[in-house]
Amino acid sequence: MGKRIVIALGGNALGKNLPEQMIAVKETARAIADLIEGGHEVILSHGNGPQVGMIQSAMTLLTRSDPEKYIPCPLSVCVAMSQGYIGYDLQNALREELLDRGIEKGVATVLTQVEVDPDDPAFKNPTKPIGAFMTQEEARRMVRERDYDVMEDAGRGWRRVVASPRPQSIVEISTIHNLVDAGHVVIACGGGGIPVFKTDRHHLKGAAAVIDKDFAACLLARQVEADYLIILTAVEKVAVDFGKPTQKWLDHMTLEEARKYIDEGQFAPGSMLPKVEAAMEFAQSAPGRTSLITLLHKAKDGIDGKTGTVISQ
Amino acid sequence: MGKRIVIALGGNALGKNLPEQMIAVKETARAIADLIEGGHEVILSHGNGPQVGMIQSAMTLLTRSDPEKYIPCPLSVCVAMSQGYIGYDLQNALREELLDRGIEKGVATVLTQVEVDPDDPAFKNPTKPIGAFMTQEEARRMVRERDYDVMEDAGRGWRRVVASPRPQSIVEISTIHNLVDAGHVVIACGGGGIPVFKTDRHHLKGAAAVIDKDFAACLLARQVEADYLIILTAVEKVAVDFGKPTQKWLDHMTLEEARKYIDEGQFAPGSMLPKVEAAMEFAQSAPGRTSLITLLHKAKDGIDGKTGTVISQ
Repeated sequence: MGKRIVIALGGNALGKNLPEQMIAVKETARAIADLIEGGHEVILSHGNGPQVGMIQSAMTLLTRSDPEKYIPCPLSVCVAMSQGYIGYDLQNALREELLDRGIEKGVATVLTQVEVDPDDPAFKNPTKPIGAFMTQEEARRMVRERDYDVMEDAGRGWRRVVASPRPQSIVEISTIHNLVDAGHVVIACGGGGIPVFKTDRHHLKGAAAVIDKDFAACLLARQVEADYLIILTAVEKVAVDFGKPTQKWLDHMTLEEARKYIDEGQFAPGSMLPKVEAAMEFAQSAPGRTSLITLLHKAKDGIDGKTGTVISQ
Repeated sequence: MGKRIVIALGGNALGKNLPEQMIAVKETARAIADLIEGGHEVILSHGNGPQVGMIQSAMTLLTRSDPEKYIPCPLSVCVAMSQGYIGYDLQNALREELLDRGIEKGVATVLTQVEVDPDDPAFKNPTKPIGAFMTQEEARRMVRERDYDVMEDAGRGWRRVVASPRPQSIVEISTIHNLVDAGHVVIACGGGGIPVFKTDRHHLKGAAAVIDKDFAACLLARQVEADYLIILTAVEKVAVDFGKPTQKWLDHMTLEEARKYIDEGQFAPGSMLPKVEAAMEFAQSAPGRTSLITLLHKAKDGIDGKTGTVISQ
């Protein structure tokens, strides 16, 4: 029986620059095509760390080259550009891989805005560094002129830091739902989505924020009523006592076990912790929903119950 | 009776930079919402001249800043980024305008690739200048190292020139068709579409080209079986003997009349000529299809038969 599966692709699936991405998406396309060939419906979401960093650096150089002509490019616009850039390579590679296997399916990137709450506590404590390094003087000017938050980054210079608020709703969800129901493979919520918040009745304003891609994928999976959320990462399974003699790879976690491990501090913040939290949030959102954390090329084996760490109620 | 209308938005509808675009899309949204409120189905296409120029300049500066780390960004990738950037502002403004009028409709940007023919004669004679100015030395290096075509631009320096081939097919057409049929407002073929060509069985490679947005919109209108193609421009009507004492504004052209005017050299190449040609191509593609050339804020009046220049069989 075919399942509806949302996949959160990480940095490994996309590479860190233009030539790497061209190669990486081919392997990604094969792993995803395996699932589609297996009869599953797939919806893709992806990170954009290196890509949005590259775009932000380029736009910053442009502003520096002619500050009269070019105002600084808002982060939300950089995220929108990164969805175009990544979606282009990803949909192209997947389309080709499917056609090579004789599968005719629409593959589409839907530009996606994700609403965040302006009162999210994350906005009071921005921690996510983005964009180019600055001198202390530049950093001070950005604080003064553009109300940036900045942070000294391990002796390498100053960087802007932004908030990482929780995603609240997906603005283009009806479009995504419609395409998924019609049998298309949809790429959505790229880079966690373009972060926006309501400023009055219907106006959405770009937020200086980066939404965690795993939480955005979790919301997407809930809203398209998926059976599975697959969070891809650099390890085949989640471990407890990671790196210690007592290290143990986990085949399965109940929500209760996962909570216990989190309380023990088993998962690193900013790394495995948000993945486990997003996986838990999806698994507890409705009966029968299952999350899976594994490697890209093990995704199909994971869905077939052969590997990965399963998180379920 | 509601009609299916494809609109080709020009530069005027989008502005030339970030702050201009934010303002311009609001007026554009009002004009489009008038048509939707009038019961019509609308599909939007748009140009990207200033936007893709900005992105290309930024990416060129990035490469210059660290040539080891950043290879030059292909033009097709810059077009993909521009679709994200413009689509974000445009879909947001339109969504807000519709909600303010109590209209709930999905508004979505579909990242669009458009196939061109590698044997298109345009590739033998690239004429469209793009990106930043270069010194003669830089230009020579680009010719040598990257096989660029370059041209001296009116004493202001050297620029890369690319081909402007005719669009052959829209890769994501099934996605667009599906959304239009489901009642969504779709933004597609931005900047004429990401230009690609087949290199082997199913592989699509980005082309160093810019597709004319009016021809791309014409193809889109044909493929979604639209009733109307509206090409927006800076004048309310097309004129013959433009700027002469005998100048005459045209309410209507048959295909035969349009051909006669073209033979007389009435329309400027690179300006009104491609618009009239795209309008003719749509009007002659099937009985009952009508093209309209007019101003953005006259679009609704034009569809109601009150102004603009109509081109029909």
